[in-house]
Amino acid sequence: MITVYSPAHKDHWGQGEFFAGRMMDCYEVPERAARILASVQALNLGPVVAPPSLDHALLSKVHDADYLEFLETIHAHWVSENGDCDAFPYVFLSGRSVRPATAAVARLGQFATDACSPITAQTWTAACASAASAVHAAELLRAADEPVMALCRPPGHHAGRRSYGGYCFLNNGALAAERLLQAGAGRVAILDIDNHHGNGTQEIFYERSDVMTVSIHGTPDIQFPWFTGYSDETGAGKGEGFNLNRPLQANSDLAAYEHALIGCLDHIGRYGPDAIIVALGVDAGEGDPTSQLRIDTSGFAAIGARIASLAIPTVFIMEGGYNLDRIGGDVGAFLQGWHAARRT
Amino acid sequence: MITVYSPAHKDHWGQGEFFAGRMMDCYEVPERAARILASVQALNLGPVVAPPSLDHALLSKVHDADYLEFLETIHAHWVSENGDCDAFPYVFLSGRSVRPATAAVARLGQFATDACSPITAQTWTAACASAASAVHAAELLRAADEPVMALCRPPGHHAGRRSYGGYCFLNNGALAAERLLQAGAGRVAILDIDNHHGNGTQEIFYERSDVMTVSIHGTPDIQFPWFTGYSDETGAGKGEGFNLNRPLQANSDLAAYEHALIGCLDHIGRYGPDAIIVALGVDAGEGDPTSQLRIDTSGFAAIGARIASLAIPTVFIMEGGYNLDRIGGDVGAFLQGWHAARRT
Repeated sequence: MITVYSPAHKDHWGQGEFFAGRMMDCYEVPERAARILASVQALNLGPVVAPPSLDHALLSKVHDADYLEFLETIHAHWVSENGDCDAFPYVFLSGRSVRPATAAVARLGQFATDACSPITAQTWTAACASAASAVHAAELLRAADEPVMALCRPPGHHAGRRSYGGYCFLNNGALAAERLLQAGAGRVAILDIDNHHGNGTQEIFYERSDVMTVSIHGTPDIQFPWFTGYSDETGAGKGEGFNLNRPLQANSDLAAYEHALIGCLDHIGRYGPDAIIVALGVDAGEGDPTSQLRIDTSGFAAIGARIASLAIPTVFIMEGGYNLDRIGGDVGAFLQGWHAARRT
Repeated sequence: MITVYSPAHKDHWGQGEFFAGRMMDCYEVPERAARILASVQALNLGPVVAPPSLDHALLSKVHDADYLEFLETIHAHWVSENGDCDAFPYVFLSGRSVRPATAAVARLGQFATDACSPITAQTWTAACASAASAVHAAELLRAADEPVMALCRPPGHHAGRRSYGGYCFLNNGALAAERLLQAGAGRVAILDIDNHHGNGTQEIFYERSDVMTVSIHGTPDIQFPWFTGYSDETGAGKGEGFNLNRPLQANSDLAAYEHALIGCLDHIGRYGPDAIIVALGVDAGEGDPTSQLRIDTSGFAAIGARIASLAIPTVFIMEGGYNLDRIGGDVGAFLQGWHAARRT
């Protein structure tokens, strides 16, 4: 396995997040990626390479131009109006169409879906490097038995065509899918096993049939992103039938998880994609501060093994996981489980 | 003049507001109403009476039933899930139509337009008492030379049919207008002189011609509520031509203000309403922490005198004003200016 990783994420470290009525320390911190990288290296899972610079033309296939311009410029704009601190929205339009806003806080309110995702001076640089890793992983993909992992940070699956939130700014998985299509794939499946619904990815491909989006996650009744991720969201137009959500109830264990996963893998298998992108969050782990699921480390190995059964060229893209004590081990177990199953 | 006032607002006192990237002390505090009440009494402006209980049937003419149920129940719901603190949203849909949310934070995200408006244990009680004061002021209105003031707190003009924000939960002015229509008025005008666009009031009556809405305010380019309040918002459908916005540039002085006001009064005069509701904010005062306008205390007297020239039965409904050192004197000056002009 090749791992694509850029250290550019390290300077993207928010001062806090506004959550449950107060400012609190960020869950989404640089140490997350450090733990995963250490695990990948300790397990001898293959070389770690740096991505080349991001192809900005590809960005515009996934995100709107005004949103990209916003992401690139908003922190400096915010600082000029509010002083030198991270940019947070506090008024909201959440993507509804209105005249372009001019003030920093209004621009934030047009594109933000939450107040938990601080934009720092280094967010744009880090998001571009994270996206570059995902795109490069897609470029390196050659064969079904040699996966490529993008060790992305910040994560991407909550970023929509013109919205950010859930610590996500650019949709890394969607960019990788576009790169695979560009390189000749006819159909790509994205399987999102992060504990939270991949709402951005769903939105981006909701009316398309060339990218199937499948997400297993804790039910949005009780967790982020709250408003989407239900099983009746099945796609629209040409995309009807190409989006599958499998929300799980609180306290779901590995058995319940695998039951949902088997259904998802069957659905993907019948689609017959040329490549699969696994949006790899390990926040379904028991004790994750953002999760109410109960997967232990060996459970992630089992999940990895099940996904390997697809025998389709595979890109892993890191998403969430916020228990620093477990994130390295859980990602490692998942990858070892995947590799062990693929070798048999 | 009769002043309608309920002390029920005193226990609605937020722990803070999320603003400019941090939690800060609330601008909207009980002392605001205390200062205005003291000024009204010191100036011998007439009796102060308490309102009867709110007519909840009237509420449903202005706000949707699910929104009212939300406002009444959300704090207890929030506390059950998040502990005993004020309720703040941190994910947002801002009124977009989706399935009803179940979790407290998701319900907040469906109805909130900002993160600056804490909902406390006493918010519903205070909002109902404030609305009751506005409705009772409308009921007490008899003649053109004897205005009635509702000393409302919390304010109301940012509350929409199914949204809250800007410290507003129930739209007091809209409720007073409905009460006047109920009592036989054929046309009612709402003149909003608060420094911030009366976006909730505009939304509620945007497609109606029986209530004209007129707002003078600092331009939303640079201040709350950011997304509305432009001069090209003129109403829709049957309401086309019955909404007038006069945004003022930063640092506008009394001359600029009066120029806009004269145009508004002319527009209202040609409409020929049976009654006028003045949404009375004094946050256009120079030095108000939420304002970039430059009206001094004598300026508010001049503004009051100009509005008195309409010679239409008038209800004053308190909205904003956040400079505690000035709020009592500015409201008093406005009212004295109004009365002096009406007597001449």
